[in-house]
Amino acid sequence: MGVGEIESLEELKREFQKLPGIGPRSAERLAFHVLRSDRAEAAKLADAVLAVKDRVIHCGACFNLTEKTPCNICTATDRDRRQIWVVEQPKDVLALEKTGLVRGVYHVLMGHIAPLDGVEPGDLTIDALMSRVKNKNEEEEEGVTEVILATNPTVEGDGTALYLESLLADTNLKVSRLARGLAVGSQLEYASLGMLEAAIRGRTAG
Amino acid sequence: MGVGEIESLEELKREFQKLPGIGPRSAERLAFHVLRSDRAEAAKLADAVLAVKDRVIHCGACFNLTEKTPCNICTATDRDRRQIWVVEQPKDVLALEKTGLVRGVYHVLMGHIAPLDGVEPGDLTIDALMSRVKNKNEEEEEGVTEVILATNPTVEGDGTALYLESLLADTNLKVSRLARGLAVGSQLEYASLGMLEAAIRGRTAG
Repeated sequence: MGVGEIESLEELKREFQKLPGIGPRSAERLAFHVLRSDRAEAAKLADAVLAVKDRVIHCGACFNLTEKTPCNICTATDRDRRQIWVVEQPKDVLALEKTGLVRGVYHVLMGHIAPLDGVEPGDLTIDALMSRVKNKNEEEEEGVTEVILATNPTVEGDGTALYLESLLADTNLKVSRLARGLAVGSQLEYASLGMLEAAIRGRTAG
Repeated sequence: MGVGEIESLEELKREFQKLPGIGPRSAERLAFHVLRSDRAEAAKLADAVLAVKDRVIHCGACFNLTEKTPCNICTATDRDRRQIWVVEQPKDVLALEKTGLVRGVYHVLMGHIAPLDGVEPGDLTIDALMSRVKNKNEEEEEGVTEVILATNPTVEGDGTALYLESLLADTNLKVSRLARGLAVGSQLEYASLGMLEAAIRGRTAG
């Protein structure tokens, strides 16, 4: 450590640099910002960091992040528990909730099948999903009738959805997947081949 | 708050968003990173934030940031206390220290004169600088003989340096300023007019 360096400031820079997308210069800017802000503000940041670790857990039913289990969505009275939206990550729940279009409940897989990265179906919450859809759960007033596979439109997301479709094939459940096609607001000339193919194959009556 | 949102996670996002250069999406990524990291890592970040506020103070002699006063640079035995490098901000000390070329000590002005922003000379540590250079300080073995004005090459930095030069004019001190000219590694064709002018006016014998 150079003679001009301040140990606690360097330590804070190192901690900020561990965060994603924060390089040495950003870390320095953030550290100096904390230094300049008043102590109450710094304490709020420090408390918020710890509170997230201490309070956030996974919902025992849907595996979404929550501060209580079962989570607010699983226990909401205005939700249709017969309809399960299967997503890869808790972030996807937030994205879908923002649309306001989901009236069902969720099931978070906690990832996608990726054999090359060592992620097998057993590493995901697929067993829990299957027992939710096959057995009429005590907490659910009525049995599940519909599963919407809302995995990402990526190779791994598609592979995971195909795997789930095969598992669900011998049930009487209505299984669907999110539509894919041209991104709203995009231009045809810049669309990728995959996007165009999806748009053409999935074309709807005008 | 939406039904799918987690209070402590939203709170952490809000705190991260207060940091400079962190927008809503970055804040979300950072918050999820904290959530995924183990508790010891989160505690290190929280502790580092508070430690900076609790431990970092200004050196009573040079006003640089430090955990003890006078700071390590002011008390270093291998420093030439007759030579004072005047900079605007503590960050500038770090930048100059990285060169390894400064053998003197520093004086941090804590800003620059900017009347339009309401920063007058009295708001800076100029009085302290003048008493350092005029009176043989008890802590300094020998009186100050040289002042290097290392303010930024900006309108405000130049203005501040000119003001200091006028204050120091009636002393016998050697006063100098950092050289300015073409940025090393840059190309003439892209140099700004100000940079070219400085390079031409300050040209040295080949």
